[in-house]
Amino acid sequence: MRIDLNCDMGESFGAYTIGDDDRIMLWISSANIACGFHGGDPRVMDHTVAMAKKHQVAVGAHPGYPDRLGFGRRRLETFSGEIRGYMVYQMGALAAFARVHGIRLQHVKPHGALYNLAASDERTAEEVIAAVRSFDPEVILVTLAGSLCGEMAAEAGLRVAHEAFPDRAYQSDGQLAPRSLPGAVIRDPEVIGARAAKLVTSGAVTSIDGQEVAIKADTLCLHGDVPDAWKVARAIREGLAAAGVEVLPMSMICGS
Amino acid sequence: MRIDLNCDMGESFGAYTIGDDDRIMLWISSANIACGFHGGDPRVMDHTVAMAKKHQVAVGAHPGYPDRLGFGRRRLETFSGEIRGYMVYQMGALAAFARVHGIRLQHVKPHGALYNLAASDERTAEEVIAAVRSFDPEVILVTLAGSLCGEMAAEAGLRVAHEAFPDRAYQSDGQLAPRSLPGAVIRDPEVIGARAAKLVTSGAVTSIDGQEVAIKADTLCLHGDVPDAWKVARAIREGLAAAGVEVLPMSMICGS
Amino acid sequence: MRIDLNCDMGESFGAYTIGDDDRIMLWISSANIACGFHGGDPRVMDHTVAMAKKHQVAVGAHPGYPDRLGFGRRRLETFSGEIRGYMVYQMGALAAFARVHGIRLQHVKPHGALYNLAASDERTAEEVIAAVRSFDPEVILVTLAGSLCGEMAAEAGLRVAHEAFPDRAYQSDGQLAPRSLPGAVIRDPEVIGARAAKLVTSGAVTSIDGQEVAIKADTLCLHGDVPDAWKVARAIREGLAAAGVEVLPMSMICGS
Amino acid sequence: MRIDLNCDMGESFGAYTIGDDDRIMLWISSANIACGFHGGDPRVMDHTVAMAKKHQVAVGAHPGYPDRLGFGRRRLETFSGEIRGYMVYQMGALAAFARVHGIRLQHVKPHGALYNLAASDERTAEEVIAAVRSFDPEVILVTLAGSLCGEMAAEAGLRVAHEAFPDRAYQSDGQLAPRSLPGAVIRDPEVIGARAAKLVTSGAVTSIDGQEVAIKADTLCLHGDVPDAWKVARAIREGLAAAGVEVLPMSMICGS
Repeated sequence: MRIDLNCDMGESFGAYTIGDDDRIMLWISSANIACGFHGGDPRVMDHTVAMAKKHQVAVGAHPGYPDRLGFGRRRLETFSGEIRGYMVYQMGALAAFARVHGIRLQHVKPHGALYNLAASDERTAEEVIAAVRSFDPEVILVTLAGSLCGEMAAEAGLRVAHEAFPDRAYQSDGQLAPRSLPGAVIRDPEVIGARAAKLVTSGAVTSIDGQEVAIKADTLCLHGDVPDAWKVARAIREGLAAAGVEVLPMSMICGS
Repeated sequence: MRIDLNCDMGESFGAYTIGDDDRIMLWISSANIACGFHGGDPRVMDHTVAMAKKHQVAVGAHPGYPDRLGFGRRRLETFSGEIRGYMVYQMGALAAFARVHGIRLQHVKPHGALYNLAASDERTAEEVIAAVRSFDPEVILVTLAGSLCGEMAAEAGLRVAHEAFPDRAYQSDGQLAPRSLPGAVIRDPEVIGARAAKLVTSGAVTSIDGQEVAIKADTLCLHGDVPDAWKVARAIREGLAAAGVEVLPMSMICGS
Repeated sequence: MRIDLNCDMGESFGAYTIGDDDRIMLWISSANIACGFHGGDPRVMDHTVAMAKKHQVAVGAHPGYPDRLGFGRRRLETFSGEIRGYMVYQMGALAAFARVHGIRLQHVKPHGALYNLAASDERTAEEVIAAVRSFDPEVILVTLAGSLCGEMAAEAGLRVAHEAFPDRAYQSDGQLAPRSLPGAVIRDPEVIGARAAKLVTSGAVTSIDGQEVAIKADTLCLHGDVPDAWKVARAIREGLAAAGVEVLPMSMICGS
Repeated sequence: MRIDLNCDMGESFGAYTIGDDDRIMLWISSANIACGFHGGDPRVMDHTVAMAKKHQVAVGAHPGYPDRLGFGRRRLETFSGEIRGYMVYQMGALAAFARVHGIRLQHVKPHGALYNLAASDERTAEEVIAAVRSFDPEVILVTLAGSLCGEMAAEAGLRVAHEAFPDRAYQSDGQLAPRSLPGAVIRDPEVIGARAAKLVTSGAVTSIDGQEVAIKADTLCLHGDVPDAWKVARAIREGLAAAGVEVLPMSMICGS
């Protein structure tokens, strides 16, 4: 049994610091690195790639909408092809820093509103998939487990990493419970660690209304922007270790 | 006898149009494509690369300072390594669009204040050179003919394209006459065409004070942002053709 | 009979020019000046206010979403109060340039997607109205004739200018025909001029399906971003003059 | 004996937080509020003005260069009049939020590179002064004690607040010791508090080489971006209180 553990990294910008990258980097196997649109800048990208390499964490692009004020969390209406362009641009920029540091781009995971929209909107999913295929078909696309985008990407022949969230409650239909719902976001590191272990070992979560729901996951997402995120990371690693689960970069998990 | 003819392209942004790319593209052999910092955006980059490919014009990155309001024309103080990061980021982004369109990045030409500073400032030249070497040592660096940067890049083993300006007056020391000087900028297409032909066939220009000055050029720069720029382009092509000079992408001119 | 004629102005940015402000300014009575979010910058704002003053054109703020790439034409999800903040910020900035030039801010007209959303979305309209009231209740709010926002603003005690579009077809319910519909956008200056005159003198337009529809308008919008916009402006002025309609800034038309 | 205590506030942006405004606000008498160019955004400005009002802290505009990536810490080449425009724009935006909250703009203090350049560069000082005069001659301009800008502003009839830095070492000529010098930045709250008290009560500081140097100060600057900034704030207040110095907004100190 094995799983990848990913986290958004490199979202600091100029004089602004966000996240706790130095500590989180010690616990994850894949880093989703912001590409300068919603967060990140060339210095931060360069530094974050170097740090990931040092800690043998695989690097991925984490492209978002061009909306720094909104941190990529709000949808933008786009022309046909525009999302594809946002993706190509940002993957290229991050891949360049990987190349400069002698490593490869392992994956790409859209950020925020782009991730959410791609999960369910066909046109967006198509553009995301087209971007990855045309830029580098070896790059793994990270999508929400059970999403339209994941299905479409697999059909298109892309390598796909299905992602699950051990700190988020699920509905009995396998969808994430909306954040507005009480209990939708889990904060106790112990509980999150136990959920992570169960997700991997049993391929299921207990839904918010007590059902067992099958979730096929290649990678678990760690939220780096919560208080004491590194403690959650540690708890997940401990939970996984106790259950005999190995943590590996997703390229060693997702078929090529 | 042969020469490359380059022009800055793809500097439009969103609803804002600048330059006359559609017409200029017909006359040049290499396009310096803005990368989204001083000008350009993903849609414009995608479109400009596609158009260049269609017209068999080689593509290069045209990275600038992150200062859209100043259009990359003003210097920014930078941390050590910051210019290198600006270059890597923008080369990566443009190279991604080239890759998507199945072509290669031929060259990189810094824009505006970055070009000028790199020409004479050692630290800036070092960072520009380091960026190209670490990103892709096959990419040609375009520098001002006779500049420090050109010398340093050649010493560093990079492929260098030395650039001359047929529409700019030169001093007798081989430097460009400052734009503030009367006569520093030449506007008559016929005159520019004749200067271009002489530059290539004799390896010299007549300086602003009447001296013959040797200028070794691999590529001539066409300014796309002047009125009737395409007429200047046509006059240069006609002047070169009349003198028996072939116009070819710089990759066929600069040794590898 | 009298009417105001307004046009969006000052949307250029840095090296980028958009619109034909110099010529349009001669034909209008009120200028909606971009405030640096979707278009415009401090230099352009300063220059545009100065030019408006010189031509005795009244100035208004033309605030948009903070989305220069999208030119304010796409909606952004916002937190409660965020649109109010966008409005206050931009009105303040433009009012400062008016003050520096010794004139007053006459009006405010939201731009693009913000205008459209405010016309029909209650929360947006509330924030727009709250912004104007709290910043300066003497400032006139320009809204789409017949819109929710106009009604709400009037109820809130604001001075409101109801706006009509002589170059746009109307449906028989008084709504603008969507741009996607054939015939929705009228381009012939003569026709536009005649429609303008009829709008003012009869208080009605002929709808796209041949009905007479009452439209109460205090100001007519001229689109500055179409080819030969100034010819449309001239045709409207001529049409209005022939019908004996006086063109005056909206502050002389809307009650205080 | 009385003095104003000012601090830069409201430099957070979107999802990015910087500074410790909530705690610092309790200890100061004047807040320099970022205006959206180097830091800040409409939501942050609105919130910061509201918080200042609640704590009876006077508000000022803190305009910077339009360079968020560089946090306004690097100089930009500007056209004639451009700095004046940056100042007018940002003062207007901040003044609008003050107006909305029913308070007045007390002062303006240029940020970072703009502050430093204005202190010694005549053209920049002229534009800063022209901006304040034309926007609102009642607004106090905060300048480095002993600077060219302060002299010029006083001559121009502006209200000027001369600023000193209790946490910075001074040279015997009254200039700030460069940050690169060992000992140039003082970090011990007790020492800073004692220096503040001495500055106000004796009108002098002990320079880095042991000389007594006269410094006429109306306001002391507190740096909010250092670790435990609020402890420094508290130490200054305690030092001043022990010396019998009253802390008051600068409008009660600088003559009108």
